[in-house]
Amino acid sequence: MVGIFSSGCHCQIGFVVKIDFEPLGRRVEVNDSETILDAAQRAGLTVAAICGGRGTCGTCKIRLVSGELTPPTSVETQKLPSSALVSGFRLACQSRPAGDIRVEVPPESLTALQRILVEGIDSKFEFDPSIRFVSLDIEPPDNGDFEADDLRILKALNDLGFSSGITISPPIFPVLSSQLRSLEWKIKLAVTTTEPGSVIACLPVNAHGLGIACDMGSTKLAMYLVDLETGGILARTGRMNPQISYGEDVVNRIAYCNTHQDGRQILQHRLIETLNEMIGDLCGKTGSRPEWIVDCVMVGNTAMHHFFAGFPVRQLGEAPFIPAVSQATYLSAGNLHLNVAPGAEVYLPPNIAGFVGSDHVAMLLAANSWIGEKTIVSMDIGTNTEISLLSGGNMYSCSCASGPAFEGAHIEAGMRAAAGAIERVQIRNSQIIWQTIENTRPVGICGSGILDTVAELKLAGFLDTRGIFVRDHPMSNRLKEKNRMVLIPAESTGIGKDIEITRRDINQIQLAKAAIQAGVKILLKKAGCQPQDIDDFFIAGAFGTYLDVDHSIEIGLLPDIPLERYHQMGNAAGVGACQLLFSKKMRKTAGFIANNSHYVELTIDPDFTGDFLDAMFLHRGY
Amino acid sequence: MVGIFSSGCHCQIGFVVKIDFEPLGRRVEVNDSETILDAAQRAGLTVAAICGGRGTCGTCKIRLVSGELTPPTSVETQKLPSSALVSGFRLACQSRPAGDIRVEVPPESLTALQRILVEGIDSKFEFDPSIRFVSLDIEPPDNGDFEADDLRILKALNDLGFSSGITISPPIFPVLSSQLRSLEWKIKLAVTTTEPGSVIACLPVNAHGLGIACDMGSTKLAMYLVDLETGGILARTGRMNPQISYGEDVVNRIAYCNTHQDGRQILQHRLIETLNEMIGDLCGKTGSRPEWIVDCVMVGNTAMHHFFAGFPVRQLGEAPFIPAVSQATYLSAGNLHLNVAPGAEVYLPPNIAGFVGSDHVAMLLAANSWIGEKTIVSMDIGTNTEISLLSGGNMYSCSCASGPAFEGAHIEAGMRAAAGAIERVQIRNSQIIWQTIENTRPVGICGSGILDTVAELKLAGFLDTRGIFVRDHPMSNRLKEKNRMVLIPAESTGIGKDIEITRRDINQIQLAKAAIQAGVKILLKKAGCQPQDIDDFFIAGAFGTYLDVDHSIEIGLLPDIPLERYHQMGNAAGVGACQLLFSKKMRKTAGFIANNSHYVELTIDPDFTGDFLDAMFLHRGY
Ligand code: FES
Ligand code: FES
Repeated sequence: MVGIFSSGCHCQIGFVVKIDFEPLGRRVEVNDSETILDAAQRAGLTVAAICGGRGTCGTCKIRLVSGELTPPTSVETQKLPSSALVSGFRLACQSRPAGDIRVEVPPESLTALQRILVEGIDSKFEFDPSIRFVSLDIEPPDNGDFEADDLRILKALNDLGFSSGITISPPIFPVLSSQLRSLEWKIKLAVTTTEPGSVIACLPVNAHGLGIACDMGSTKLAMYLVDLETGGILARTGRMNPQISYGEDVVNRIAYCNTHQDGRQILQHRLIETLNEMIGDLCGKTGSRPEWIVDCVMVGNTAMHHFFAGFPVRQLGEAPFIPAVSQATYLSAGNLHLNVAPGAEVYLPPNIAGFVGSDHVAMLLAANSWIGEKTIVSMDIGTNTEISLLSGGNMYSCSCASGPAFEGAHIEAGMRAAAGAIERVQIRNSQIIWQTIENTRPVGICGSGILDTVAELKLAGFLDTRGIFVRDHPMSNRLKEKNRMVLIPAESTGIGKDIEITRRDINQIQLAKAAIQAGVKILLKKAGCQPQDIDDFFIAGAFGTYLDVDHSIEIGLLPDIPLERYHQMGNAAGVGACQLLFSKKMRKTAGFIANNSHYVELTIDPDFTGDFLDAMFLHRGY
Repeated sequence: MVGIFSSGCHCQIGFVVKIDFEPLGRRVEVNDSETILDAAQRAGLTVAAICGGRGTCGTCKIRLVSGELTPPTSVETQKLPSSALVSGFRLACQSRPAGDIRVEVPPESLTALQRILVEGIDSKFEFDPSIRFVSLDIEPPDNGDFEADDLRILKALNDLGFSSGITISPPIFPVLSSQLRSLEWKIKLAVTTTEPGSVIACLPVNAHGLGIACDMGSTKLAMYLVDLETGGILARTGRMNPQISYGEDVVNRIAYCNTHQDGRQILQHRLIETLNEMIGDLCGKTGSRPEWIVDCVMVGNTAMHHFFAGFPVRQLGEAPFIPAVSQATYLSAGNLHLNVAPGAEVYLPPNIAGFVGSDHVAMLLAANSWIGEKTIVSMDIGTNTEISLLSGGNMYSCSCASGPAFEGAHIEAGMRAAAGAIERVQIRNSQIIWQTIENTRPVGICGSGILDTVAELKLAGFLDTRGIFVRDHPMSNRLKEKNRMVLIPAESTGIGKDIEITRRDINQIQLAKAAIQAGVKILLKKAGCQPQDIDDFFIAGAFGTYLDVDHSIEIGLLPDIPLERYHQMGNAAGVGACQLLFSKKMRKTAGFIANNSHYVELTIDPDFTGDFLDAMFLHRGY
């Protein structure tokens, strides 16, 4: 900690301090008048800060590991439970270093909006939600005034200057008349902001108008509760997708629907049941009521979109894999039995193609990677990896069948990223160093761990470019048989036996990365670009956020461009979904993206097979 | 039959013939080149002719009793089953007299659009339905064309010149993709005609686009199936309202809802179940399929409107009797579980007040009695009698609690208008002459019969103005006790005992007619008119169509104005509902009527009690 500014009138007083960000291991020197959020951004870290640092969203949580911060502000004592404060949790936008410090960025705070780093959030979009709120104190009917309930409300709105074409949405009528009377005609109405407007909910005047944004992954569901009146994110929650019992991936779930009568209804019902539990959680956490939720944005891959909406999936499961619905769609929450205000609308952004869904559109929104003169790749790695390339103002999208290896599936010792999963692997002098999630004894290996393993084994020279273990190598003593090595011996694991890596596991990673490499190459060819032309490379999703970029380049998963061009974004689809709640303009943009994206079907591209086979080898970069 | 025109070049050849219309007993002399429909209109008869005499609707059925008509045209052999032709049924618009004839106008053909008589149907409204139909032959997707199903349809419509803002209604997505494939992409789309338009159904190209119009009375349901492409009425059907089991009138049904959890849902469910049976009937009769029905218009009193839509009724059942919804409303047929195309919309015209519903609005439309400089009364007599007065361009409406006496209820020997009901009564020289429905032995007396009875007893001097039987009258031998007379002795009835009329029965009629008279008088006072100013007096509904106008004047139910100013209209609400299917402009007009009608609450009018008590006496006219 070194003072660099002299004290004096009109001069800024400050010290340069060092901040170490864990577990990412980045160090940055900053002026101590800057917030930790500023410092993190300067360090290129994708810390979430949905509200732009105004202290309203609570997404920028960090934890002090050593050193001192300025004392908690009143905003922090309000936003954070005292138990969290005691454990060292703080809001990055509210706290400043009081000396050299070490802070930990918890994974949940990495659900970042990358453009914060690039352009600053405030220039990104204005707060312009689809719903506005109007408080009214209406004269009740009496024996000289027989006007109907609906007309009474419409006239009060007309008096306030609302368009004469304004209507009341029929789903609220079954509850409206008793609400008006129990609230004694003092109400807060939720009104759509598209002309001429429609009243979609009647709330008590002291209620907050709320919205939910949800990213429906094939495996995981993430939901955000937001305050539509202030723009704050109030709470987040996550659950496993209950449809997993009907098929691990969407292809199997479509097959289930094709072979079971009411299969679609069952999948939809199970999903919505779980979404309703999540809504219950969020409301419980925040002391809110589900009927105050008046707007919903749901994003997901095209199959999840169809499962949620009850749209047919048969044609989505067989070539040429056609979505029933690609355009943005508004559904009634009441029809879907979503436990929110019965008149709430559910907005589903558009899909680009059968395997490039609205979650990818939301990611492009969050990364702001859909417009401009830069060359930008946006990628969401999963069982299907969606890739978009923006180049020369044109947009190309594709989907690669990368398989579930990066989610830990189809790997003998593979597991999801959960406690006990090996998430980081290094090899130094033939010694294997590893780290598990929550630092427990290892019980398996997750996507980022297996990726690290393959890259480090290759760097150590123990794997050849075909993915075969090399004989007569210092590490050969780890081979149990020709195609099977011990990664962690039984005495160090939490399962009483060795954790092993097989040649088949390595081949799975080769197949996955080859599909992705071929996809990127074909998009680049379509646009007439080289990998080196890529200015920014956004990677979203859980695996994408935790993968080691250099290792990914090492095995040829990612192209060999400077590391600083890579941006790991966290749950970008969820962030995009929140933006779609906050901004009507974003909804227009989503339509623009879907309609202007050139979908490239890899399987019919004449270069695809060749590119794919070439990419199977473990070469650095491309 | 006398020739009046000499034959010769450029001269019209014709004979004057006499036509007797039964059972209304009107005779008219016409030229034999005129159709029976022309003749009926000349006779002032309200024969239905929804299509304006083009031979497409089939509503103008009549039956030849004696004499000869021109031979059946090909239109008639197509429209009428051969069994009907054999029994003498013909279409009035297609047949001409071949000499003096006697024809019978069956009650169902009296569901008339009165304005046909006044102005001719063609000037009334143009055929401008809310739905249009577009046949498309779409390129299916293949391995070089991955466009989603929705976008493929929207682009085909854009190519045909449809607005770029056109959308597809979400309720059809669950079935659309499989329909497209099973119909091999040759489809007929139903598209709303309001800009920018919405696709609401996908039909086979050879299907007919259909609509239903329904009048939901508290007691009876009437439904019409219409061809939305040609404007023809294909079939009609009627059922009892199944809600009767939960309360004979709407007041009792509202009480049921207030005291039973899910009462509203039960009433709605039972109603829609029956409506679906009626749809099944209509489709069976015409070889149509329910999913070809893409537009629905439902009219009813305000309570039936609310029961159908699932709107709350508690506040409708207690003073000040406020409707939850008065404005025109579009609901989704799918949400209502109505067995029609899932994307079909259900249009509910506006209500005027808690006891003046959309059925009354439909009646005003059918009678065209809502605009102009004439002074017009429109009345629908039932348990509640709705009355509108148009005067000086202003419209006033009210509802009178006239009770169910005119429907045969609360009358000791009363019954609905069904086989065996005494429907006509005359007294000549103290002898009682009567006629029953279907000419069977009498089993009871219906509304028009009890009205005739009271009027004739009064004319015969056997009732005084207070409604008390007069002693020492030639008919006194019919008195069984002071306040009870034998109308038909047991030996002539079909029930093995006397059919009797009591003073209580007569009092019920006095109460009912007093309420109606007071209502008419108060509306006239509001408008500053006298009864003699009334130019036209429309009476709708089953009882209104069959009542004897002169008898009604005799007891003071109707004002004493010339008989030719009265027009008995049949199911005017049903006719209005059909017009709302055929004409978008009519829907606008319905909104205009509801918003410009001054509702008059009789019970708080200072004159009401006085007028009502005065009107209790049995005086001729007012
Ligand atoms: S950025 Fe810190 S609370 Fe929102
Ligand atoms: S008027 Fe005769 S068929 Fe329509």
